[in-house]
Amino acid sequence: MRDAVLSGLGDHGYPGLTIEYVAEHSGVHKTTLYRRWGGLEGLVADALDMAGEDTWTPPDTGTLEGDLRALAREVVDAFDDPTKAAAPTAFIAAAFQSPRAADALCAFYTERFTRCEAVIARAVARGEAAADTDAAALVRAVSAPLMLRLFVTREPIDTALADQSAAAALAATRAGAFDRPSTPKNR
Amino acid sequence: MRDAVLSGLGDHGYPGLTIEYVAEHSGVHKTTLYRRWGGLEGLVADALDMAGEDTWTPPDTGTLEGDLRALAREVVDAFDDPTKAAAPTAFIAAAFQSPRAADALCAFYTERFTRCEAVIARAVARGEAAADTDAAALVRAVSAPLMLRLFVTREPIDTALADQSAAAALAATRAGAFDRPSTPKNR
Repeated sequence: MRDAVLSGLGDHGYPGLTIEYVAEHSGVHKTTLYRRWGGLEGLVADALDMAGEDTWTPPDTGTLEGDLRALAREVVDAFDDPTKAAAPTAFIAAAFQSPRAADALCAFYTERFTRCEAVIARAVARGEAAADTDAAALVRAVSAPLMLRLFVTREPIDTALADQSAAAALAATRAGAFDRPSTPKNR
Repeated sequence: MRDAVLSGLGDHGYPGLTIEYVAEHSGVHKTTLYRRWGGLEGLVADALDMAGEDTWTPPDTGTLEGDLRALAREVVDAFDDPTKAAAPTAFIAAAFQSPRAADALCAFYTERFTRCEAVIARAVARGEAAADTDAAALVRAVSAPLMLRLFVTREPIDTALADQSAAAALAATRAGAFDRPSTPKNR
């Protein structure tokens, strides 16, 4: 069923996906799909839950600079390839129309960015970042300029932009812009 | 016609908008709408063109820090209010399904961010930023972490996040992370 949802989203996007498509490509009867998943929204949310169950881990290059750049470049690589980009793009589109898809997408990205925070924990251990760095904000700042262009402003992205985004996030970290405000200190 | 498209997008989003709705609310006959705009995609693209014809100008607080913070807070203010947020959100959603809407959205944001670059020009004139600052990248970096959460990760945003985003962009600017690579210099 999940493969059918993913291939349907890849081929037709959302809302081009239909229960009929999923039934035909999964061999599961329509009435069963409705009974178990409650319809398309439930199927999409379930497929997104599955997408979050992979074993992806963030890059570990030995430096914060290298890790942030590698993270940013992974975004470019993932969305430069139309085949790889189709399903994630369809999930992001589905969230505009389905509150259940939006909740599932939020859970997916929250968990994904939590994995990315390992990059910051290692940087703190190496003395490259302050212990009170807002890791959640920092890892989102790296991909945000790329995601903005991909899904909002519809502008092209490339490796140079990824590197610039990583460099900006690194500079902001070094300047203390991602320090949590709860710990006042002299800078 | 454009008011009907905007109110329809606000009420029903995209693809909830129909030619019938626009015809009914604009008093323009369906066949005329099809003949002049070629259908919904053309109507949405035209409404977006109109949205870009406002007289909005970026904040001018007297400092780069103040201007970037005000820009970021405007994003929070605009999308915190469901009434104000409905049409822009529907345009962003429409771009996932309509290449014409995507082109119109890209043109809208390109022009909008070009207006924002006045903030950087003033900062350069005051000596607050290097003359070769990549103003286009900088102004996008300010709103990107907010737009990421609004339209991709579906996470909440608030004024504190706006201020953090502005502070990060400012720190990156001061550190030279937005300097154009074409002009090597010692830092």
